[in-house]
Amino acid sequence: MTVSASTTGNAAPERRGRSPKGALKREAILDAALEVFGEVGLHGASLREIASRVDVSHQSLMHYFPTKNELLMAVLRRRDERLRRHFSDEGGMSIGELVSVAKANVRIPGLIELYNMASAEATNEDHPAHEYYAEFYENLIGSMAMYLSRAEERGFLREGWTAKTAAQAILGMMDGLQLQWLYDRENVNVAEAMNLLISTIILVPLSNLDGR
Amino acid sequence: MTVSASTTGNAAPERRGRSPKGALKREAILDAALEVFGEVGLHGASLREIASRVDVSHQSLMHYFPTKNELLMAVLRRRDERLRRHFSDEGGMSIGELVSVAKANVRIPGLIELYNMASAEATNEDHPAHEYYAEFYENLIGSMAMYLSRAEERGFLREGWTAKTAAQAILGMMDGLQLQWLYDRENVNVAEAMNLLISTIILVPLSNLDGR
Repeated sequence: MTVSASTTGNAAPERRGRSPKGALKREAILDAALEVFGEVGLHGASLREIASRVDVSHQSLMHYFPTKNELLMAVLRRRDERLRRHFSDEGGMSIGELVSVAKANVRIPGLIELYNMASAEATNEDHPAHEYYAEFYENLIGSMAMYLSRAEERGFLREGWTAKTAAQAILGMMDGLQLQWLYDRENVNVAEAMNLLISTIILVPLSNLDGR
Repeated sequence: MTVSASTTGNAAPERRGRSPKGALKREAILDAALEVFGEVGLHGASLREIASRVDVSHQSLMHYFPTKNELLMAVLRRRDERLRRHFSDEGGMSIGELVSVAKANVRIPGLIELYNMASAEATNEDHPAHEYYAEFYENLIGSMAMYLSRAEERGFLREGWTAKTAAQAILGMMDGLQLQWLYDRENVNVAEAMNLLISTIILVPLSNLDGR
């Protein structure tokens, strides 16, 4: 029996900064950036304003994030991390993970706004984040489809649906409803609608699929 | 019995230009703008380049569209027109309309890219197109929900679904899948997935709902 890298995750805290202090500063910059992007939008946000909120010099901030785009991508990557760490789960990413992300998202509308904008802009092949998002979507749909293939094999998907179309549909509805929710927060409940879709397509409770 | 304004629609051709010639020029500018936006993206597009493609002066173009944003919004409004003219249909907009728009969209990826970007950016309340999109979504979902209320009343919706949640879900899946499709055109079929969702939620063929 081998010990995989993922079980020794605590051994590599340096990944996000050169020192524990640097890592903390980097996180503080990302928190402030999220705040400022959320308040004044992507185009209105200035690196100087973000630096002043965390009481670091403009130059020090540029040491961590040389451009506004790199800072934005780091903010979004940190948000995506919650899903990305499940991409390599044995048997695929549980659909329940996606619903819990949707539930958590209602507390961070500014970030959802940024995520929507960035993923839409990056559909253009020349956009610096194009590769990142193309890969993110491919992995996300792939790991959901792998999880759902257990249901497909056992005949637990409603007639007409496959693991792949179900994965695309569940993620698609999440993205589209988050957009609707940003326009009308009172009338749209993303997580509830996802649960309704999931229980319509998958004929058994999700807990039946989670066991190995 | 009164004659409503909408039945005399042919009487007002001046709305889009001062003269038939002006209207044609305006349409030609919108066609060229769509081409250029699609080729180089929103930020890369220049009004000068668009003007030169239709062989009008930069000044003449500015007479029709004083800013790039106004030009972009006109391009998108023209695209939305196909749906908007059904918002006031008696009994609500047929869901089949939305599917045929999805089918037609695969021929205009550049426009779908722009639409995604604009609707995502405009979730920010300070964005000049915020009101337009908030109203567009409200009317679109409202007219779909009105159409689906006939199915709800007759018990034709699958358990758990209402006219409103079904309308939100069908539109949400369309928007989210169009985003996925822009990243992976070979593996995503928006119209097929919408038909699958529709036949899963609505227990009778759509043709049963179209009759008055």
